[in-house]
Order: sequence, then C-alpha cells, then structure tokens
Amino acid sequence: MTANTDLTEEQVRGFFTSLSNWGKWGPTDQLGALNYITPEKRRRAGTEVRDGHSVSLSLPLATRPAPDNPTPVTHLMIQTGARGESGGLVDAPYSADYFAISPHGLANTHLDALCHVFSQGKMYNGYPASDVTSQGARNGAIDALKDGIVSRGVLIDAPRVLGREWLEPGEAISPANLEAVEKSGNFRVEEGDILFVRTGRHVRQKAKGPWNSFKEGLAGLGAACLPWLHERKVALLGCDGVSDVLPSGYPKVTMPIHTVAIVTMGIHLIDNCNLDDVAAACAARLRWTFLCAIAPLVLIRGTASPVNPLAIF
Amino acid sequence: MTANTDLTEEQVRGFFTSLSNWGKWGPTDQLGALNYITPEKRRRAGTEVRDGHSVSLSLPLATRPAPDNPTPVTHLMIQTGARGESGGLVDAPYSADYFAISPHGLANTHLDALCHVFSQGKMYNGYPASDVTSQGARNGAIDALKDGIVSRGVLIDAPRVLGREWLEPGEAISPANLEAVEKSGNFRVEEGDILFVRTGRHVRQKAKGPWNSFKEGLAGLGAACLPWLHERKVALLGCDGVSDVLPSGYPKVTMPIHTVAIVTMGIHLIDNCNLDDVAAACAARLRWTFLCAIAPLVLIRGTASPVNPLAIF
Amino acid sequence: MTANTDLTEEQVRGFFTSLSNWGKWGPTDQLGALNYITPEKRRRAGTEVRDGHSVSLSLPLATRPAPDNPTPVTHLMIQTGARGESGGLVDAPYSADYFAISPHGLANTHLDALCHVFSQGKMYNGYPASDVTSQGARNGAIDALKDGIVSRGVLIDAPRVLGREWLEPGEAISPANLEAVEKSGNFRVEEGDILFVRTGRHVRQKAKGPWNSFKEGLAGLGAACLPWLHERKVALLGCDGVSDVLPSGYPKVTMPIHTVAIVTMGIHLIDNCNLDDVAAACAARLRWTFLCAIAPLVLIRGTASPVNPLAIF
Amino acid sequence: MTANTDLTEEQVRGFFTSLSNWGKWGPTDQLGALNYITPEKRRRAGTEVRDGHSVSLSLPLATRPAPDNPTPVTHLMIQTGARGESGGLVDAPYSADYFAISPHGLANTHLDALCHVFSQGKMYNGYPASDVTSQGARNGAIDALKDGIVSRGVLIDAPRVLGREWLEPGEAISPANLEAVEKSGNFRVEEGDILFVRTGRHVRQKAKGPWNSFKEGLAGLGAACLPWLHERKVALLGCDGVSDVLPSGYPKVTMPIHTVAIVTMGIHLIDNCNLDDVAAACAARLRWTFLCAIAPLVLIRGTASPVNPLAIF
Repeated sequence: MTANTDLTEEQVRGFFTSLSNWGKWGPTDQLGALNYITPEKRRRAGTEVRDGHSVSLSLPLATRPAPDNPTPVTHLMIQTGARGESGGLVDAPYSADYFAISPHGLANTHLDALCHVFSQGKMYNGYPASDVTSQGARNGAIDALKDGIVSRGVLIDAPRVLGREWLEPGEAISPANLEAVEKSGNFRVEEGDILFVRTGRHVRQKAKGPWNSFKEGLAGLGAACLPWLHERKVALLGCDGVSDVLPSGYPKVTMPIHTVAIVTMGIHLIDNCNLDDVAAACAARLRWTFLCAIAPLVLIRGTASPVNPLAIF
Repeated sequence: MTANTDLTEEQVRGFFTSLSNWGKWGPTDQLGALNYITPEKRRRAGTEVRDGHSVSLSLPLATRPAPDNPTPVTHLMIQTGARGESGGLVDAPYSADYFAISPHGLANTHLDALCHVFSQGKMYNGYPASDVTSQGARNGAIDALKDGIVSRGVLIDAPRVLGREWLEPGEAISPANLEAVEKSGNFRVEEGDILFVRTGRHVRQKAKGPWNSFKEGLAGLGAACLPWLHERKVALLGCDGVSDVLPSGYPKVTMPIHTVAIVTMGIHLIDNCNLDDVAAACAARLRWTFLCAIAPLVLIRGTASPVNPLAIF
Repeated sequence: MTANTDLTEEQVRGFFTSLSNWGKWGPTDQLGALNYITPEKRRRAGTEVRDGHSVSLSLPLATRPAPDNPTPVTHLMIQTGARGESGGLVDAPYSADYFAISPHGLANTHLDALCHVFSQGKMYNGYPASDVTSQGARNGAIDALKDGIVSRGVLIDAPRVLGREWLEPGEAISPANLEAVEKSGNFRVEEGDILFVRTGRHVRQKAKGPWNSFKEGLAGLGAACLPWLHERKVALLGCDGVSDVLPSGYPKVTMPIHTVAIVTMGIHLIDNCNLDDVAAACAARLRWTFLCAIAPLVLIRGTASPVNPLAIF
Repeated sequence: MTANTDLTEEQVRGFFTSLSNWGKWGPTDQLGALNYITPEKRRRAGTEVRDGHSVSLSLPLATRPAPDNPTPVTHLMIQTGARGESGGLVDAPYSADYFAISPHGLANTHLDALCHVFSQGKMYNGYPASDVTSQGARNGAIDALKDGIVSRGVLIDAPRVLGREWLEPGEAISPANLEAVEKSGNFRVEEGDILFVRTGRHVRQKAKGPWNSFKEGLAGLGAACLPWLHERKVALLGCDGVSDVLPSGYPKVTMPIHTVAIVTMGIHLIDNCNLDDVAAACAARLRWTFLCAIAPLVLIRGTASPVNPLAIF
C-alpha cells in the first residue's frame, strides 16, 4: 500500500470542484450516484445469482461499550418467556424487546444519507446545511432510498491480494492497489456497481483486541482514490472501516472520502461492514461479484439507517 | 370473503398438533419454514428479475401516536446542519440522529422472530419459553436470520380480485379466496415462496382515517388458511395487517395465525407491510411474483427486527 | 380574571430591557433569580415546617399519548419478578426498568434551565445561544442547580379565590388577581419565594377530558404580571399549566412569561405541576406557605430536569 | 474495620426471619421502614435547618462507559441554540434535550423501590415476585413514595473517623465501627433517621482510577450491621457504594444488605450517592445531622428512581 501523501491538501481540496456531480441529475435530485443504477443495471445484476447462496455484510448491532463504541446500542427485553398469566389463552404472553441506536460512528454497519456530511455549509447538490434542522433533513434524507439499493456488488479484498491478513491502522489504499486487485480477480468495477473495500479490520480486531480508530488510526482509501471512484461511476461505497484512511494526513480535511464522495459526488457510504464472510464466499467461488441488496429502514427525514446488506451469489 | 366461523375452536386447537413442523429440520433448528428456501430456490428466484424495478414493502417508521401506535418510534435529531464551529475544517460538522423502537405492534413493518410467540410454555421446535430471559432469546432469535431471506415473493391482492378497494375490519380470507386469487393471476404459491397477503388496510386508512385494530377489527387470514399454508410449504408470510383476522372468533385463541404459523409450523411473519406500491407494480405488469429480499438487522438474541422488504421485478 | 390585552406588544417587548437582571449577579452568573434565595432565606423557610406533612407537586411521568403529550415517556420493564433461574442464590433475580424522557412540553412536571429559552440569539445574562450545541449547554445548564432549590413556597390558588373550579383556557391572570389572592389568604409574596400559581387545569381535565393546549388555549399569567414578578423578586415560578396564558395575544411574542422571566429576569420555571394536592393541604390549614424543596437531577449541560417538588408544612 | 466473616451464612440466612417487618404496618403497606418517619419526626427534622446551607448527595448522571457503567445514560441534545428560523418570533427557537436511563447498577445515584429485590419469590411484606410483570410492579413500586422522603439525615463518615481517605474494596464496616463514629461525632442514629454511610469510594476513584466493583470489590456494610439497622429503626439507608460490602463473603447471599434490608425489613436503599460534599459540609460544622429531602420521580409502577437527595443544614 502506498503512503497517503501523494497529494497535497490543496490538490484534495481541488476535488471539491473537479469531481462534482452537482446538478448532473437535476436540481432536485435526492439519489446522487445511485442514479447510475438503472433498471437495466439491476436486471443484469439479477444474473449474478448463480448458486443461490446468501451472505450478510453486517456486524451485529453493537450493544457493549468498546473503544470504537462509546454510545452502545441499547437493547432491552421488555417481555420474556417467563410463565406469566395467560388467562387461559393459548397464545399469551408474547416476548418483545426494544432497541435504541444512533447509527453513525465506528461500531455499527450503517448507510450514511447524503445529508450526513456538509462542506462549507452545503450538502450534495448544493442544498444548504440549514435544510437539516431539529425536524430532520428536508433534502438528502435516508427515506429517499426507501425502494432499496439493488445492483451488482463487487468486493475488493485488499489484504488478500497482498497476501496479508489485514492492513495496518493508517495504511492507505491507492488507485494502483484497487486496480491490482481487479486484475488479480479478473473483474472490473463498472458504472453503477456497489463497491465494498475490505481492509481486514475485524480479523485484526480478533487477533489484537479492539482499538480506538480515531486515535490510533484505521486502514482505508487514500484521497487519491477519489478521481478513480468518480471515473468508474461507482454507485455506493462500503468498507469494513469507514472508507477513509485515518488519519487522513490532511489537517483541514479529516475525512476526504466522506466529504468528497458524499458531498461532491453524491456517493452514499456504508461504514463498518462485516466483509469477512463475503470475502470467504468470494474466495470459495473465485468470484468477486454478486447481486447486492441493501434495504434501509424508512426513517422519514433521517440521516442514516443501520443496514444488513446482502450478497447473493 | 367467507365468515371466520367455518371451524370450531376445538378444530383450531387441533392444528397445534396436526400441522406441527417440530423436529422436521432437526432438534436444534432455528430457521423453521425458511428451510424451504434452498439455494436452488434462491437461484430460480433470481430469474424473477426481468425489468429491474425495485419496490419497498415497508411503511415508514411510525413516529407519531395513533390508534394503532400507542408507543411511537422515538426519532431525534442530535446534530443538525446549523452553522456550528468547524474550526476551519472542511468536513465539519456532520448531522446525526437517533431512533428507538419496540418493533412489535400494529404500526411498524417488522419481522417476528420465532421466539416472539409461545403456546403453553413452548416455542417453535419445542424450545421452552424460559429460553427467553432478560438476556434475550437463547433459541428462535432474530439473529438466526442474519444472512437474510431471499426467495420468490408472491402477492395475493385480495381486494383487487373481489373488485373492491379494501376488505373490512373483521373480514376473514379463506383458502378458497386464496385459490381464486391464484387462478385469476395465473400463478401458484409453491414451496419456499414468500407470501404477501394484501387486504387494502392502508387504502381504507387513507379514506376513513385510522382506527384501533384490536378494538375495531382488522381484515386477515381466517384460521382455515393454516392447513393451506402448511400444505403449500410457504416459507414466510407477510400482510398489510397482522396476517390474523381480528377478532379471530375464538375466545381462547386470539391470534391463531400468529400462534400456529409461528409456534407450530415455524413460519416467520411480517406484520404491517406496505403492500400498495407492490400491488401497483404487480398490476402494471400483470405479474404477481418477484424476487424478494428481506434483510433483518442483526440484533443478537432479539425478538424481531424492523424490516424493509424489497420486491425486485 | 382580566383579558390579556392590557398591554400592547410594544409594551411587552419593552420588558425585555426594562426588567433585565443581566449582570446583576456578575457576568458569569448561572443562577439568576435563585440568587434571591440566601442562606438566611433558607433558614427562615425551615420554620415553615410546623406539622410535618409532605406533599408532592408533581404529575406522574406521562407514559401515554395524549393531546398534550405527542412524545410520551418510554417506560419499559427490563427485569420482572417472573421466576427465573436463581442458581440457588437467595437474592436473585432483581427487577429493573428503564425510562426515556424529553422533559420539555406540556405533559411532564419539569424545571426549565435558563438555557432553555433564547431571545434574539441570547440567553439570560447575555450568553449567546450558540453556547448550546450538540455537546450541551456551556452556560445556563440544569446542573448549575445541583445543590437543589430550597426556600419558602407560596401557593396562589386562583380559581379558589374566584369561587370557581378552574380558569378557562385562554383566561389570563392579572397582577390585581395575584394581589386579591394574597389579600384573601393573608400572605405576601416576598423576595426569594418560590411561587406556584394554580389555574385548576387538571380538575378541568378530569371533568372535560384532555385538550390540546397549544391549539385550544391554557389559562396562565398575562404578560402584565411580569413587572410584578420582578418587583416582588420571585426566585422561581411554577404553574399547573406553563405559566404563560395561551394564546398570549401577541403574534410575535408567543410566550412572554417564558421569554421575559427566563431570558430577561433569570427566573427558572416549572411547567405542568400538580397543584391540586398542595391546594388541598393549604386549604385544610388555611395556610398558603410552606417549605419547598426541589431537587433536579444532575444532568451535566442539560436543558431541563423532570422534578418532583415537595411542599412540607 | 473488621473482617466480614463474623457471621456464618446460616446466621445471615436467619436474619430473613428474625429481622422481619412483614405485616408490621398492615398487610397492604407500601412504605416499609419509611413508616418510622412520622409527621412529628418530620417536624423535628425541620429544626435541623440552622444556617440555610443546601448540598447535593447525588453524582451526575453517568453518560460515559466505565468499568461500573456498562450501560451509560443516553443524553442527547435535540434542539440547540444554533441560529434557526425564528419566523420573526421573539421567543424561538428553544433548546431541548432527552435522556434515557436504567437507574439500577453501580453508576447512578438511585433509590431502589421495595419491589427491586426478591428473596425466594417474595418481596417485602410477602408480596409475590409475580406482582412485578412487564406492566410494572403492582406492589412495592416507586410511586408509593411520590410525596417524598423528608426526615433527619445522619452521616456516618467511616474513613474520617479512622483517619483514612477511604476504605478499601472488600472492607466491611461493622456495628462497632458505626458506634465508634457515633461516639466520635456525639450523635446517635435514631428511629426514622435517613442514614448515609460514606466509604470514600469516589476519593479513591479520583486517586486510583475507576474499577469494576463486582469483580474487584467495594467497601460497605457487613451483614452484621443488619440487626443494628433493625434495632435503631433506620428509615432509609444510603451509601456512596451500594451499602453491601462486595464480595459479601457468602456464596449464596451475594448482597445480604440489599436482600435483608429491602425484602425483610422494608428499608429503601439509595446506591452510589456522592457523599464527599456533604462530608465536607458536616466536617466544617462538626455536625453530622441535617434536614434531608429526597424526591423520587413519580414513575407509576417503577422499580427505582434516579434521585438527588438534598442535605439542608
């Protein structure tokens, strides 16, 4: 992997204009790069289903405190199976539970809405940040994706191609790395694809224990990948980290992938995927593409949804 | 639609043994009738993708009190787009939100885990109700479905075939009704299908305003449909109501579909689907089958998940 | 009760400067009019304890939706007394519960922190509204009151003196009304007192059913009471409504008591008190003063706390 | 401090019957030892107010994960002071927040209701544990205390008398210790007193960092104090730990103070008090008694309330 200092901060800031998709799909567009997923793209994605195997790309909801999880998901049982009074009913009582989540952060698999990130007071497509009030987001909200995201999924398994178990915190993936993986796997990332980039984060976590990624770093894409994502017309980007390499190397642009992909290019991100199971399924088939279905909860005016992306082979 | 008094309560109680799938997939099975969805079934379901149109079968998360929603979903904005201090950073601040949900009830589209319902102290496959404690469900939990549910989806649009807009509260659907719909649509519900039954509940709600379904009734399947579901080897049942007709007509078995389908047969249920959009998509194509993908959140030991089922045509 | 049109909006707006306590207790003051409660005032308040009777001034936490309660308190049992596994232990298992609350609104008895209200971008003492961020309130937060509020409490039972059961929604209390009650009860509101004003809201609610106070009105203090509160040096104001009469009669100043009392004068408010029990205790003793103790939860940087004010006679 | 092995487990188990207050205040009693607080007791407690100083005995709500805080309080800002649209209104917008808490545990100052602890299927006064269902507690609930707890408070500052800063985890306080403190302070714990026992836990925490009290121990009262509490007719017991010394030394009775005090004697407990400030106030006055006011939130059928007990000198 190359160091993340190929580009100056000025060059990275340049991407905010040079890679812009604002207006490309009209002044009221809510979908951004998901527009690359046409019905025809979906139709062809259906042909990726060949042996009928289905795999989750989601971590469990993170209910325990950890270095990357200061605000754990609350999960409470509110009715158990303890013998209660059934009043003679055959079908009583039920069990029930409750959970509460703030999806953003480094612990839960979640889909960022386009309203999640601002740059200099603007969202994707030029909507003002002030569109996001205590009443929710007037533009760029997660419910714009209610009909789901269905397309061809592609896995970039970065450590595998390097013959390693994981990338180290702070290690940046370059466009050359992406292309080496493509070449090795005999596939090509194309317009409308859902791209998942694996860094081996959770294998490292199992081996070495959890760490605080904002403090100690996280592997991810270097800013130099941004033009590549733009050129390839990627529809959505997911990662077992947060797509961005941490630290970014740029004091004033702490997360260039988040900012340029979401704000400038309108690419939705999925953070903290579980990519180990899908990597195993890919490796077993020597096939790095699959039908991918992502079904965010319909949270009106929301900024994100926890998701369980599915890969179907 | 026929009245729901075809069967005596004694006959309905008989279904608890006559329709049992306990042990059928081994003593430790966690999937129940989802076992009917084989890789081959999934593979063939992939061929349902023909024109690449994707539709949500979910209602929005219900954040406002209503007669069927006494405990609304909490949705709070915890960071807005108000101009805050960015410290000169290009990518600050973010927006963020939070939500809290108890998925069961009559308001939210949710997938019941097999541990949700007990009958006489037992769950599906004979697991004791005491397996569901304040620590969650040791058996029958929602996380057993983490790899998602992907199969052929089938829509039974009951009011359409009757030339009506909706069924009335308390109106029961019979096996004859189901078969009339099949015949009219030229399809047949088969082993491993995900079956959705539409009653027109939300069209009625828009026309007449919301009502309290437990008090005033809800259209749904009569208990007489249970042997039919068993025979057809349905993998999962969804409804725009709660599958059960309310009231059931049986004082001691208030929700026979919930109880026999979940406990006896191991059929997962999805309650409170939005079936209006998918019905329109089906009618436009005169095609009542599609690829269906359901991706519950991975809530370890949970009793349910809110879901956004997708139909892909 | 007099109509609430004694003053023009311009006159009310004048109170924002004429009644100001900004700077009175120093530029970093966090307590506002609570500074009127000196140790000597507290000491004398102790002498109000004469027969040792203690009464709550709080409603129950409002867990059910109602016209004035669109976001009910969430209360969940997370451990019950159902016979669970005790592993032979004598002291297992425990019961436990959970609650979640957004204290502001018209349903719960809560103490507003000084940071709760802004006027033209400022809080009490001139602190900028921007001091209240997603990290909480840097100034005017509820935890400034951690050592509690203890002083003489005084009850103004407005309907009693009028020989009525309640005031009607929209009915405004005037300074003349306040003084008539004082005279009738043979007491005088003095510096540092905790003043509770009863409108009979909950008696009306029991008789007529709940209503939506923002839409249909609520009895309370007219804006003309503001100079009176200032002159009497009231330390804290509580009401069975929200202190303000609704509607206020001023299109641009919808809640003049909230705004002038909190922002200009630094008077904390307690909304939605239960004043029926304390009114009965007062009437039984023909005594309208008592020791009052209010103990907000220590929520660092919070904007409010649910409270259970106590009157001790 | 004496070792906590003075008594055999059999002797401790004997306390479950020998110290019983069941039935003492009638078969439907909900208050337990709070019955010792008579109006006359409250009246005399009022005379404890001498210099008008008020001090909190509460920790801040614990919003961050820590060894003793695996399920932190959720505190979210839902409206900030960011310049939003005021529509020309003088009094808009407001700030607002939200919090969610499960009060039990080792992190928050909370008052246990009598329904919190069971022993062999029973609560205080013989109520069955099955009275606590998913609908809350039919008996022994926190709302029985809605009118507050007002009495004389007494501080036992254990480390002070020993000339130490804190007691060590696992160190047990004996009746002899309690009496040595009484003697040294020239006071006597009497019928109806609210007793606070300080171990110096938070001073140790500041010096040595937090620890996991269930794993590593906590100073507190040994089981031998139970007959003493009974004889002295203490109304309520609070501690900066959880009253119980941890570990208890008894494999089958892990928390004898919790179990015998609450279940057998009907003594409410307050866990995790902040006793450092009140200790300083006492030391400055060489006076260990004060008026104490405790005002639990009115949570119908609840098992506990976070509280901010006040000491007024």
